[in-house]
Amino acid sequence: MTREDVGKEMYEFIEELYPICRSITGNGLRQTLDRIGRVVPLEVHEVPTGTRVFDWTVPREWNIEEAFIEDVDGTRLVDFRDHSLHVVSYSVPVDRVCQWDELEQHLHTLPEHPDWIPYRTSYYKENWGFCVAHRDLDRFRAGPFRVVIRSSLTEGHLTYGESVIPGATSREVLFFNHVCHPSLCNDNLSGNVVMAELARRLRKRQNRFTYRFVWAPGTIGSITWLSRNEQALQGIHAGLVGVLLGDAGPFHYKRTRRGAAEIDRVVEFVLKEQELDARLLDFSPYGYDERQFGSPGIDAPVGRLTRTPNGEYPEYHSSADDLTFVRPKYLAESLRVLERIVEILEGNQYYRNTHPKCEPQLGKRGLYGSTGGSQPKLREHAMLWVLSMSDTHQSLLDISVRSGIGFDTVHSAAKHLLAAGLLEECGERKPR
Amino acid sequence: MTREDVGKEMYEFIEELYPICRSITGNGLRQTLDRIGRVVPLEVHEVPTGTRVFDWTVPREWNIEEAFIEDVDGTRLVDFRDHSLHVVSYSVPVDRVCQWDELEQHLHTLPEHPDWIPYRTSYYKENWGFCVAHRDLDRFRAGPFRVVIRSSLTEGHLTYGESVIPGATSREVLFFNHVCHPSLCNDNLSGNVVMAELARRLRKRQNRFTYRFVWAPGTIGSITWLSRNEQALQGIHAGLVGVLLGDAGPFHYKRTRRGAAEIDRVVEFVLKEQELDARLLDFSPYGYDERQFGSPGIDAPVGRLTRTPNGEYPEYHSSADDLTFVRPKYLAESLRVLERIVEILEGNQYYRNTHPKCEPQLGKRGLYGSTGGSQPKLREHAMLWVLSMSDTHQSLLDISVRSGIGFDTVHSAAKHLLAAGLLEECGERKPR
Amino acid sequence: MTREDVGKEMYEFIEELYPICRSITGNGLRQTLDRIGRVVPLEVHEVPTGTRVFDWTVPREWNIEEAFIEDVDGTRLVDFRDHSLHVVSYSVPVDRVCQWDELEQHLHTLPEHPDWIPYRTSYYKENWGFCVAHRDLDRFRAGPFRVVIRSSLTEGHLTYGESVIPGATSREVLFFNHVCHPSLCNDNLSGNVVMAELARRLRKRQNRFTYRFVWAPGTIGSITWLSRNEQALQGIHAGLVGVLLGDAGPFHYKRTRRGAAEIDRVVEFVLKEQELDARLLDFSPYGYDERQFGSPGIDAPVGRLTRTPNGEYPEYHSSADDLTFVRPKYLAESLRVLERIVEILEGNQYYRNTHPKCEPQLGKRGLYGSTGGSQPKLREHAMLWVLSMSDTHQSLLDISVRSGIGFDTVHSAAKHLLAAGLLEECGERKPR
Repeated sequence: MTREDVGKEMYEFIEELYPICRSITGNGLRQTLDRIGRVVPLEVHEVPTGTRVFDWTVPREWNIEEAFIEDVDGTRLVDFRDHSLHVVSYSVPVDRVCQWDELEQHLHTLPEHPDWIPYRTSYYKENWGFCVAHRDLDRFRAGPFRVVIRSSLTEGHLTYGESVIPGATSREVLFFNHVCHPSLCNDNLSGNVVMAELARRLRKRQNRFTYRFVWAPGTIGSITWLSRNEQALQGIHAGLVGVLLGDAGPFHYKRTRRGAAEIDRVVEFVLKEQELDARLLDFSPYGYDERQFGSPGIDAPVGRLTRTPNGEYPEYHSSADDLTFVRPKYLAESLRVLERIVEILEGNQYYRNTHPKCEPQLGKRGLYGSTGGSQPKLREHAMLWVLSMSDTHQSLLDISVRSGIGFDTVHSAAKHLLAAGLLEECGERKPR
Repeated sequence: MTREDVGKEMYEFIEELYPICRSITGNGLRQTLDRIGRVVPLEVHEVPTGTRVFDWTVPREWNIEEAFIEDVDGTRLVDFRDHSLHVVSYSVPVDRVCQWDELEQHLHTLPEHPDWIPYRTSYYKENWGFCVAHRDLDRFRAGPFRVVIRSSLTEGHLTYGESVIPGATSREVLFFNHVCHPSLCNDNLSGNVVMAELARRLRKRQNRFTYRFVWAPGTIGSITWLSRNEQALQGIHAGLVGVLLGDAGPFHYKRTRRGAAEIDRVVEFVLKEQELDARLLDFSPYGYDERQFGSPGIDAPVGRLTRTPNGEYPEYHSSADDLTFVRPKYLAESLRVLERIVEILEGNQYYRNTHPKCEPQLGKRGLYGSTGGSQPKLREHAMLWVLSMSDTHQSLLDISVRSGIGFDTVHSAAKHLLAAGLLEECGERKPR
Repeated sequence: MTREDVGKEMYEFIEELYPICRSITGNGLRQTLDRIGRVVPLEVHEVPTGTRVFDWTVPREWNIEEAFIEDVDGTRLVDFRDHSLHVVSYSVPVDRVCQWDELEQHLHTLPEHPDWIPYRTSYYKENWGFCVAHRDLDRFRAGPFRVVIRSSLTEGHLTYGESVIPGATSREVLFFNHVCHPSLCNDNLSGNVVMAELARRLRKRQNRFTYRFVWAPGTIGSITWLSRNEQALQGIHAGLVGVLLGDAGPFHYKRTRRGAAEIDRVVEFVLKEQELDARLLDFSPYGYDERQFGSPGIDAPVGRLTRTPNGEYPEYHSSADDLTFVRPKYLAESLRVLERIVEILEGNQYYRNTHPKCEPQLGKRGLYGSTGGSQPKLREHAMLWVLSMSDTHQSLLDISVRSGIGFDTVHSAAKHLLAAGLLEECGERKPR
């Protein structure tokens, strides 16, 4: 399958998921996880309402059947069936007649973008509301208006899905993304489908690390996951929140709290190596789920990869984040970058030179040209670099950066030296 | 009282102190301390001649009544009553007639500034001399000349004044300045009056730290103070030599010996925050009393704040450092900067986030907007930053610098979080 | 003797050594060491063929009497007597008649420089070959050709020479250079003669450090030396591989493996101080013998000083690296730089200020001007800097760099302070 085809396939998956009304709990979320589970097998977790998760509590489950506003003539002015963004997420049920003065308090618009419907939520304060295009306020003439939201808030569950792909070691690479947004394409159906495709591909390979993919609602979902997996954090070798991966903007990598973890070095290396016009951002405590991973009591090595970050494009959290805003080629490019990140993570070993006193004689092992006097080749240079720097404190990535020789050449040199007994693996080591 | 009025008041205080002939000992110094003591209560210390202070010895006390040079006609060519700079400080008594050849050895002028009288001293070698405007050498025609200096060098005392303002903790902030220069305005009456006003203001407030102000003669005074207060150095949280504070030049901050003390960070922050066109200088072992605090066996965290530094303006150590060289508005600006430094020192706490695992739920405590989907406000951002960084190793100043959010906003956010039980104070902590 | 004369003398020494055919073993190498031994007494070491040296084995000894190729008419097409580069070093003996097809496999040329003879070796794979100017291939018409190499490969020795100049301490400064190249002037007769002259000069002085000079064949020679002197490595204070010192190019200093050793700081200081347009290179595992000193199991503080580095000038490893390529003035300049490096190494002491609390009173010791009020002189500034920074962790070089005052002025100030009892030596100290 060509890159182009892969991009198209992921885009079609977005088209399929787009109409579903997701929230941080409920059946839309379940349907979405079920559909992702057809790409890659998922373990789906249901956490009951009321469960304490650190400082938070799993909220009641929210579901919605229909919602509309009618005028006196019975004309529908707004209808949830037209767009899942029309209703403020977690709106309590309502069925009443009211005047404009009251209704106005419950209407959200974006006056600066009169054609777009905003995305609004009220998870933790009981309220109801409608989101409409500012231009459509013209339809609201004299009241009264009939307002109906047939939603339910019940003792139920918070749902998330997890896919674990075992590798040669139990050390884990974690990919986390949120799945709670309704009909918004870039935020975050793009992340959902790219992660599903990445997981599907990794399942087909022999991997060094164990890979864990999580699709969970934002904030409350990552807090819930963390409160149930705290003991597993020590096993995380590297982690990435991968979201907002379908727009045309440049990649933005947001560093982990510590800022110099393996994932930081690897992502920065890949973005530079691929000559993408990417931006590097320091950790900050606002954004997506990386902020929970980077809280002072968690401090897990989890960075965040997006294209344009949250809040930095006008279409963000509005109906303009639609099927025209994401493109197959950007989805495919995001997947390619993530696969390269995995490749570098997998290959980035620390070695010990078994003959560390002076250079070992490469020539007698057939690893070096026999006629002296002229300059050695790149492959020979790479071997000298690997031997010189393999003191257990410098990884192949360090060696590639220091020598200026591409990672794959360095990696291949290491494989030849390993086969010749001149290197031995020394596990995952921390830089000095 | 307006800033302008405060500047005027400090300037008038300089006018009052200007005519007094000060030196490193003697009655001029005592009068000056007495006058400062009317602004802020001082404890005046008298250290006897001959006292050993580290490698030095407190010298004899010097006082002077009159001094002049007359020509054969009895015309006074130079008279100490006209300007206290006319006599080399610590000149031994003399009353004799001499010829030009001998007299010339004892006259100091500034040929490049023919109208200015230089400032010269001879503290540690017995000598006498006069300082005159180069242009006035014309008055010295054929000799002989009668030379009279009615001074005394006696077993007496070295005098310094100290004002301690107790705070909530015994940890001290030290403000040190020299008070030994005769009729020179910027160096250092400007420092003397700004420090007096700062002390007067701090006495009226509740402070976290104990503040200690010292007015002492330069070099021998700080050496004397240090030899008598060595045990107190451990209690110094931050210190500043504050001198040369009345000229029009930009602020210059000279770092402590270590270069990364609390006072270094705070002063650099304030000068940047206030958008003053300030210069930062590394520690060097020449200058004012900061060199004693920065000697290798003392190594106290004491920096130095001046406007134009010593020796870097032509008027330095000459009669041109007069009442026209200092201006009320610069005195007022210097006071404002010092007050802001105190404000930041006082507010720069280290906290511990009491809910460090994931974000605490701000919404349920009324600290966060309830409608989601749009961007949080600056105040909410500041709270997230304070929670994220309050791991006991990062102070509010660190958080302000890292987040780019103003110190006062960060400080106010911390107060709200403290009130909500989400932070606890953890005393003065060192950065990691 | 003027600098110019010294340059000329070193150049004449190169002229004398140029015709000798050297290799990594053999009589040409012995003759060269013998000739160097007339400038500075050498201890000559002979290491038998077959000796294990780390991962390597000392090879058989190679000697050569004559070599040529003749055409059917008996016309000599190539003759070793014309140029020692004509025969691939370590060529096995051969005496046979062959056709062009076979001969061609054994001819080396530089098509891009048709007038130059390349330099080629085959130390560790039995082979034979001739190196000729590409233009001279025209002489080879129809075969057959008679090929004769009268060489020998026998159980013999690897030879190197060593000169040790004892100093006040047994701590050593090591100067290492290779002496295995045949008729090539810059690489490395230039290094050979500059090192000989430097050693000759150091023998005439009282030195603080013990100086060890080694002339050895490249790679196998340094590996052999290291395998026999491993225990001595702990005693090396600083080391330098000094090679390629006669061309017109700018100096290039290649740092030690660690990159911040004493030798790194000193050489970088000298190159900057002398305002030479020099380049600083990080350690890399390719080059000359510094790569063995920088191998992970050796990690000795040995840098490398060259003018244009190996492989970065077209004449490198060809007959164009001849007597016109090196010039007396560049040899003399290289010597001057090496002598200044020695001067700084010798003078770069760590001291302890014996009066560290506040400044000691310099005036009473006659070290400071007695009239105060004007700025101190450079000499006085230098004394204040030395006193301030002499806390056992900062050397005179550190003080010179930090203060911006020239090393010689700082050094002289330290001598005065030492004489006055204000400093004491504290041996070789590591920076904090």
